[in-house]
Amino acid sequence: MIQAMARPTPLSGFPEWLPTDRAVERAVIDTLRRTFELHGFSEIETRAVEPVEELTRQGETAKEVYVISRLHDGEQGGGEARLGLHFDLTVPLARYVVENAGKLVFPFKRYQIQKVWRGERPQEGRFREFYQADIDVIGSQELAFHYEVELPLVMAEALSALPLPPIRMAVNNRKVAEGFYRAIGVSGVAATLRAVDKLAKIGHEAVAAELTDQGIASAEQAERILALADVRGADETVAERVRALGVSSELLTEGLEELSALIAAANERLPGVIEADLSIARGLDYYTGSVYETTIEGHEDLGSICSGGRYDSLAQQGGQVYPGVGLSIGVSRLVARVLSAGMATVNRGVPTVVLVALGSEDDRAAAQRVAHALRRRGIAADVAPSAAKFGRQIRHADRLGIPFVWFPASDAGGDEVKDIRSGEQVAADVQTWEPPAADLTQRLVPGSAEE
Amino acid sequence: MIQAMARPTPLSGFPEWLPTDRAVERAVIDTLRRTFELHGFSEIETRAVEPVEELTRQGETAKEVYVISRLHDGEQGGGEARLGLHFDLTVPLARYVVENAGKLVFPFKRYQIQKVWRGERPQEGRFREFYQADIDVIGSQELAFHYEVELPLVMAEALSALPLPPIRMAVNNRKVAEGFYRAIGVSGVAATLRAVDKLAKIGHEAVAAELTDQGIASAEQAERILALADVRGADETVAERVRALGVSSELLTEGLEELSALIAAANERLPGVIEADLSIARGLDYYTGSVYETTIEGHEDLGSICSGGRYDSLAQQGGQVYPGVGLSIGVSRLVARVLSAGMATVNRGVPTVVLVALGSEDDRAAAQRVAHALRRRGIAADVAPSAAKFGRQIRHADRLGIPFVWFPASDAGGDEVKDIRSGEQVAADVQTWEPPAADLTQRLVPGSAEE
Repeated sequence: MIQAMARPTPLSGFPEWLPTDRAVERAVIDTLRRTFELHGFSEIETRAVEPVEELTRQGETAKEVYVISRLHDGEQGGGEARLGLHFDLTVPLARYVVENAGKLVFPFKRYQIQKVWRGERPQEGRFREFYQADIDVIGSQELAFHYEVELPLVMAEALSALPLPPIRMAVNNRKVAEGFYRAIGVSGVAATLRAVDKLAKIGHEAVAAELTDQGIASAEQAERILALADVRGADETVAERVRALGVSSELLTEGLEELSALIAAANERLPGVIEADLSIARGLDYYTGSVYETTIEGHEDLGSICSGGRYDSLAQQGGQVYPGVGLSIGVSRLVARVLSAGMATVNRGVPTVVLVALGSEDDRAAAQRVAHALRRRGIAADVAPSAAKFGRQIRHADRLGIPFVWFPASDAGGDEVKDIRSGEQVAADVQTWEPPAADLTQRLVPGSAEE
Repeated sequence: MIQAMARPTPLSGFPEWLPTDRAVERAVIDTLRRTFELHGFSEIETRAVEPVEELTRQGETAKEVYVISRLHDGEQGGGEARLGLHFDLTVPLARYVVENAGKLVFPFKRYQIQKVWRGERPQEGRFREFYQADIDVIGSQELAFHYEVELPLVMAEALSALPLPPIRMAVNNRKVAEGFYRAIGVSGVAATLRAVDKLAKIGHEAVAAELTDQGIASAEQAERILALADVRGADETVAERVRALGVSSELLTEGLEELSALIAAANERLPGVIEADLSIARGLDYYTGSVYETTIEGHEDLGSICSGGRYDSLAQQGGQVYPGVGLSIGVSRLVARVLSAGMATVNRGVPTVVLVALGSEDDRAAAQRVAHALRRRGIAADVAPSAAKFGRQIRHADRLGIPFVWFPASDAGGDEVKDIRSGEQVAADVQTWEPPAADLTQRLVPGSAEE
């Protein structure tokens, strides 16, 4: 395969990492996966494509869908379904659950870490191709409330295992907002939520004006809506403060009980991470219970890196309904920030722990035997690319960040290994030598790479 | 998100697995990755898309390319490059190496495990979306021959670590064929290779007829070409038998030396796996040195599950040329066969080792504390979905394949854990109890799942 090419330039919105940065991304993904599995979530992967009709069912995202067609099919005849790349992992999950319902055990706890595609205009931190990491619990016909407590805690635990500044997960509950609005005589719940969603951006007065101008609420109702949105906190006083607003309804009471239960459990299991924030409106228009948004301290400009909520019907088919609770991490956006802010790097550029030096090309078979013996014991080893002065081989190891250079036995003596960081060189046996545990694998370390 | 849908049907060519089968695929991928890293290969991932011109540079595959376009862009205006999904990992590697040449250390050893897409007609074992696992070593300007020995051995080792019947890797060398053909006066090397490639399918006479009918070779030349193609073996007699055909040239001699060196090293390091087969022609038309094809004993109908070779120029840019050696495993096709032939499964359907039983919903917080203590010690644990009779909770664990059910302390006594396979129930402490090592993680086991 001969490819003469002009130097290619990166495609905006399609991130790629150098090997060291990919190792960081990989370590992040492996950490998430490990946490999800410790909590009993099974992995699934879904195909990259779905029928276009399924992808465009929710009108708002239709513009972002990438449609695929075979190069020589032109307008894609052949009677095949028109396919597009998935833009999230929720639409595929709904389809997968319905398709395989008879073979799954419910409640079905699954995690899924895959790339998704959105044809949006690329901008800082917004990609056209990116990894999402999702966890969901799906019930058949019903799903107990306690999963609305457990799932955000699993995500908070997973994120806390990463080399990030502290995270803050803000929670709200659709039942609180809807119960409150209806109790004060406001029936345009979705429109109210859309207005309240702008609170942080445009402020109280502008939101109140929008509510009254559009005839969604009277001035007095708008005031009470904003008083509700101002409630936030991480203890039982949240419910008290809402009740002090003097509004009550069955739905509101149920919502406050759920919100209080979530905060109480979070305070016990992961203190200081989760707090109620009744101004959160985004997501409440399609979620039906708890909702979650997560920011990183000092990186609030990134927006929510992990969001989700409760939905009473992920999918319906025949007489079956599948309620769920789920959260999704925007992994690529998170990793891009980890890298650009120097939050973490890996301890070296390659998986290799030991580079076996080569006195002459004739020694390659012997050097390979040394490397093979080390690998059998789980120690990643490579043989020098070519015979050269040992100084040059040590420089090669140094450029790659390989910590140890092995000198196989020769007429001059037995096997020796050198820690090229300290310069210490000692006699060693391939059957027993071990690197320090911190050197055994490529792993995340805080701070940015030295170049 | 409400999705009422007709029961969806699988898309032909886009495989998806149930969670247990995905765990098998995941274990296969993790095993490959582990072997590649032990040998010092760094992982990269490339974006799913490349400019269509790059994908169609090799005319033969053009028909298979999926082009992407934004749903509302119609004919995709906007002056953006037309993009298609990659159909292999070699075209992206070539582009990545040229794009990042200044930041990579050569020889660059990389592995890459990603999905690729081909718009081919789906048929048994041929997918439109599938995983490939590639290893390549790329040099800058030059690349030593010894990598042509090492890379197939890495792949053979990786495949041997999987729960497969014995594999057989057949090797050939472009220099042997080309040197031989030219020495006997045949200049249409590519046409000769195309004819020889049909040997197994159509037999000696038909290949000889094709060579002579098309004026590629005389009857006598055709006979000698077929005599060369008949040579196979796993020892030094291979070169002897070729030399006994009475043809010699510098290129042929060089090719035979390389082939012999490869076989000798393979016999030392991985006896019984690699053999020379001079009838292998596929791939020789674009590779420039060694080529490799791999079959599984008893599953030869699958074709080659791992192929590759040496290319003198993966890419060129400016005055730079990047030679390489690489092999690629068709992971999805392999996994599909592992599953359909019952070669392997996983020890259980979920990652969970312990299900914590729940006497009443009031005990959930205490049960979560037990699960949390186990997880902190690396033991995957889940709490029962709902309070129920213990017999029902044990049946839930059994359906998922979870081996242990934990009964938290109550008025009736201290914590106990039951191995639901043996029925044995013993007193246990969350701070010290360990499952047997074989139960700790979800892992591959030979044979098919019991249903």
